[in-house]
Amino acid sequence: MSQTKTKLLRKDAPIGVFDSGVGGLTVAREIMRQIPNEKIVYFGDTARVPYGSKSKETVTRFSEQIVRFLHTFQVKTIVVACNTASAYALDQLEHDIDIPIIGVLKPGAKAAMEATENGRIGVIATEATIGSGMYNKYIKEWNRDVTIYGKACPLFVPLIEEGLWEDPVTDEIARRYLTELIDIDIDTLILGCTHYPLIRSTLGRIAGDQVTLVNPAYETAIELREMLADMDLLNDEEPGLGSNRYQFYVSDKAEKFVRFANSIIKYGILSAKTVNIEDY
Amino acid sequence: MSQTKTKLLRKDAPIGVFDSGVGGLTVAREIMRQIPNEKIVYFGDTARVPYGSKSKETVTRFSEQIVRFLHTFQVKTIVVACNTASAYALDQLEHDIDIPIIGVLKPGAKAAMEATENGRIGVIATEATIGSGMYNKYIKEWNRDVTIYGKACPLFVPLIEEGLWEDPVTDEIARRYLTELIDIDIDTLILGCTHYPLIRSTLGRIAGDQVTLVNPAYETAIELREMLADMDLLNDEEPGLGSNRYQFYVSDKAEKFVRFANSIIKYGILSAKTVNIEDY
Repeated sequence: MSQTKTKLLRKDAPIGVFDSGVGGLTVAREIMRQIPNEKIVYFGDTARVPYGSKSKETVTRFSEQIVRFLHTFQVKTIVVACNTASAYALDQLEHDIDIPIIGVLKPGAKAAMEATENGRIGVIATEATIGSGMYNKYIKEWNRDVTIYGKACPLFVPLIEEGLWEDPVTDEIARRYLTELIDIDIDTLILGCTHYPLIRSTLGRIAGDQVTLVNPAYETAIELREMLADMDLLNDEEPGLGSNRYQFYVSDKAEKFVRFANSIIKYGILSAKTVNIEDY
Repeated sequence: MSQTKTKLLRKDAPIGVFDSGVGGLTVAREIMRQIPNEKIVYFGDTARVPYGSKSKETVTRFSEQIVRFLHTFQVKTIVVACNTASAYALDQLEHDIDIPIIGVLKPGAKAAMEATENGRIGVIATEATIGSGMYNKYIKEWNRDVTIYGKACPLFVPLIEEGLWEDPVTDEIARRYLTELIDIDIDTLILGCTHYPLIRSTLGRIAGDQVTLVNPAYETAIELREMLADMDLLNDEEPGLGSNRYQFYVSDKAEKFVRFANSIIKYGILSAKTVNIEDY
């Protein structure tokens, strides 16, 4: 990105954040905590959720539509708050737009690489994220001596969306998914889907004390803050009342989204608006 | 529909069948068994699956795009092989097009009404199908003395798509979903989602011998055959080789679709083509 272009961005512009649905709210929550002065425009693609079982071409096409939508808000940066979209579409999105854009994979990969002592890192994620091999690619670029073990966990998202965060069924499924990673002695586990921090306590209990859990949502907010600081784009002042501090858009079922969002984020999300994202 | 319009339809034209993904293959399979002379063009909306958690407006918009796509094959009739789309979109689709169209709800509702002896019918289905109240509406139109008990079962589709057709986890979830229906003494249970016949043996075991399971896929194929016979639209001759007897289209992941399809239908589905359904 050229210096000229970023100079045109306004400090008080919002940050665009998107996900296939509600999962990216765990990333938005971290941004709200860590950079409270920032405005956020969040988009959740609830009409076409989930992304994790779909192809690179489809996820990229959907992501490009969403980026065009977020662009209409003159956002100063975009956070791809979805592991699948980060794995499949980030390269193309960086090519498409002239504002800074960050995904959740690189910050998660970096934190895992710093955490591991025995060089064995597990990644649990959607079928798409695991199939992309992108966590592996990022980590190998930094350190070829680390080994990454990926495990697709397609039932976690439906279980979490059903509210079974603490439940014997979720325990049983987590045991099935994690056993092979525990057996090969990983010491670090990346929660490679934005839903998974919501069952962090279950995952931690089953993985055991010797395994460090890495939450890319948390790491992404740190990286975002550093990037904005480097570019002199941090918002200096707390947004006032009536300044649309946090705006939420979805492609379907706004009411259901708001209910779920209010269970995750404690900032009183009052409403979300529905847009036909296929028009973008 | 006017007599004039149906007269223009050709007996040897294919039947259009669509679903949000693979579930409608249980309906296609019944049509292949019961009316083997018919050609089928099947569309599965694998880019936007599932429909069962989405709104009426979104499911209707998606269904209208698919009907426009199927129309390009000069189909003589369309089968909405998805309970959610039948519940939400059938009325609008009947209004949109001038060829006969049937859904899976009415045939399922009719069979359940004929099967019940104590007048207590359970329906298990997606959140959308249950929320629509359409099974209730159809049955009450015929017999006001029958009581319908609906239960949304959002975890069944992910469990089935994960291949856990016979599994202690599926048993446990089925027990949770069915207990309240068994407790109120239903004697008939409608499998109100096209995926559910794939776990018919689990459902039958847990519901118990006193409960009759109704499979709308089976009933729909019977109704389709009767409707085509009444309209003199049954194909007289078996389609020859190279006549595109069964064609499959999807909006994403054709290979995965073909693998799943071949596990359900034993007619050697060799390929499926991908189309961008948003263009229709």
